[in-house]
Amino acid sequence: MFCHPSLVLVIINQPNRASGSRYARHSAQLSSSHLCDCASTIMGDIPAAAKSESASFSKLLTSHNLRQLLDSVDAFLFDCDGVIWKGDVLIHGVPDTIDMLRSMGKNLVFVTNNSTKSRRAYAKKFQTLGISVREDEIFSSSFAAAMFLKVNNFPTEKKVYVIGEQGILDELESAGYTGLGGPEDGRKTIEWEQNNLFDHDKNVGAVVVGLDRHINYYKLQYATLCIRENPGCLFIATNLDAVGHMSVMQEWPGAGCMVAAIRGSTEKEPVVVGKPSTFLMDFLLEKFDIPTSRMCMVGDRLDTDILFGQNAGCKTLLVLSGVTTLSTLEDTANHIQPDYYTSQMPDMHKLFGESVK
Amino acid sequence: MFCHPSLVLVIINQPNRASGSRYARHSAQLSSSHLCDCASTIMGDIPAAAKSESASFSKLLTSHNLRQLLDSVDAFLFDCDGVIWKGDVLIHGVPDTIDMLRSMGKNLVFVTNNSTKSRRAYAKKFQTLGISVREDEIFSSSFAAAMFLKVNNFPTEKKVYVIGEQGILDELESAGYTGLGGPEDGRKTIEWEQNNLFDHDKNVGAVVVGLDRHINYYKLQYATLCIRENPGCLFIATNLDAVGHMSVMQEWPGAGCMVAAIRGSTEKEPVVVGKPSTFLMDFLLEKFDIPTSRMCMVGDRLDTDILFGQNAGCKTLLVLSGVTTLSTLEDTANHIQPDYYTSQMPDMHKLFGESVK
Repeated sequence: MFCHPSLVLVIINQPNRASGSRYARHSAQLSSSHLCDCASTIMGDIPAAAKSESASFSKLLTSHNLRQLLDSVDAFLFDCDGVIWKGDVLIHGVPDTIDMLRSMGKNLVFVTNNSTKSRRAYAKKFQTLGISVREDEIFSSSFAAAMFLKVNNFPTEKKVYVIGEQGILDELESAGYTGLGGPEDGRKTIEWEQNNLFDHDKNVGAVVVGLDRHINYYKLQYATLCIRENPGCLFIATNLDAVGHMSVMQEWPGAGCMVAAIRGSTEKEPVVVGKPSTFLMDFLLEKFDIPTSRMCMVGDRLDTDILFGQNAGCKTLLVLSGVTTLSTLEDTANHIQPDYYTSQMPDMHKLFGESVK
Repeated sequence: MFCHPSLVLVIINQPNRASGSRYARHSAQLSSSHLCDCASTIMGDIPAAAKSESASFSKLLTSHNLRQLLDSVDAFLFDCDGVIWKGDVLIHGVPDTIDMLRSMGKNLVFVTNNSTKSRRAYAKKFQTLGISVREDEIFSSSFAAAMFLKVNNFPTEKKVYVIGEQGILDELESAGYTGLGGPEDGRKTIEWEQNNLFDHDKNVGAVVVGLDRHINYYKLQYATLCIRENPGCLFIATNLDAVGHMSVMQEWPGAGCMVAAIRGSTEKEPVVVGKPSTFLMDFLLEKFDIPTSRMCMVGDRLDTDILFGQNAGCKTLLVLSGVTTLSTLEDTANHIQPDYYTSQMPDMHKLFGESVK
């Protein structure tokens, strides 16, 4: 059933609906925005006490405002970690939602700050998980780093030193650049002698720093020397995420950790190419003839995904299946408010189902 | 010869003196401070062009103002790396200067931000280099970290996780604390599996971060979890030096690199116990019954040594034998001006010799 405001009272009178008690509590101050909150919502995994408090500005996604969102958006940009999957485990219900959006003719883009894989490797991961996604629908920060060099006419005869994983090296190679460092330097150590002169390639013209699970002092010194001693050497950060889901069980230090380390040793500020920088948006705008006001960014992080969407002028939907909790969203210290929030991305499919019953 | 202002012209007329040309250039605008610059100076290893420009506020150390400094100071605080030694190589002439100051009855303190050694290990290093320095004359940032816990009544039943080297663990042990991590965790790796739960000790109540040449992802994750998940866990930085002389040949990432990494992954700010924090000064004030105005900090770094001295109200002497160049000192972007500067610490002995000829 599609929930027009005029039909809301029908829903309210159904005592089994999740939001019934909520309506009763707020009935004295109903407004059109409150009416929307009384429609069907999916917040089953959030404690009852938390449910009673909505964020100051964000609206809980309902079967009603989802329809409004679907009507006003032509492209959905999805973060991956914490939205599509957690680690290598697919979030249940994602394929149905993707199929639904494709059947509606929506453009889909998968935007991830995780630089450990190339777009090709991500396309394989999607395939393994049973989701059909084309390489050109994927925008990873590894790809963004290579594209940043490309659009800035970084000369191919210069080299790029990488603190990060294979994804960055692969994207650099695809763009015609020579990458150094990365996984190979994870095995290198330094012999500490008083006359030790650490040699570095004076032809390195850019350092790209992303998440690196094999970070060591060798790489820190190499990158530091390039930035401090090679004239004009660029310092590019794939992203600044403090933590990420490297396993499904907990959060682990993200690229923000490695980038901060190089910021600490060089006292220089990086250029950030991943979210929330709008650098990637240029590619999306070239790809689709769609204004950003008809795009919606769906993500689990306020300071990257939601800010990225807002910086670009997109609509925004926060999912609480990743790093952000409802209490973080509602904390008075948080000033980043998405347009909508819901527990997880497949709620879109479920809520749409509710609305057409 | 002790150089009274009234005797300056005698010196100026000696064409072989290093500062002769300087006087000629500036003779039209002589003031009492310029007169002092015309006394004997030791800047032989600084290019002639550089010598002609003095810093806006700092005075070049001369045989004349050295005597004024010696007369007005009862305790000299020396930084070690770049002042006493470079790496493990003693700067020529240091022992004679130390002997001279001791013979004058000056108190000597050796203050170092290098946390890789304990005070005991530093005393041995001094001995090996042929300098007699007592353990209680040494104030390292490793010692400062342990003392910070002590004065803040950190409970001995709590544990301390260390990103850093043996010096921090040794000082923690001397203070009665149980340290974890450090060199031992430098050999640990993480097996990447989807259900990987990284276990950490919930009884860790403080994380100390210093220079760590065996930094790895294991340590970054351990420290990050302690700070993010153990309620009230302290985050202590030995110091924030961006780079340091880990070998005599070049600069290497310093503790500022590792501290920044943990700041990046935890989004928390550390308590800094080394220079330029004045935490160590409390110990010096308890040790000596000397006002800080009668102390002089001698160091090679503007943002740690000189700032530390200034924060505490000491006189300050910058030596150019370490990380700071004359052009850095004179750069308009630099706002930290020591009272005096000279090429290296043993200049004090040479200039004093000139003054008593």
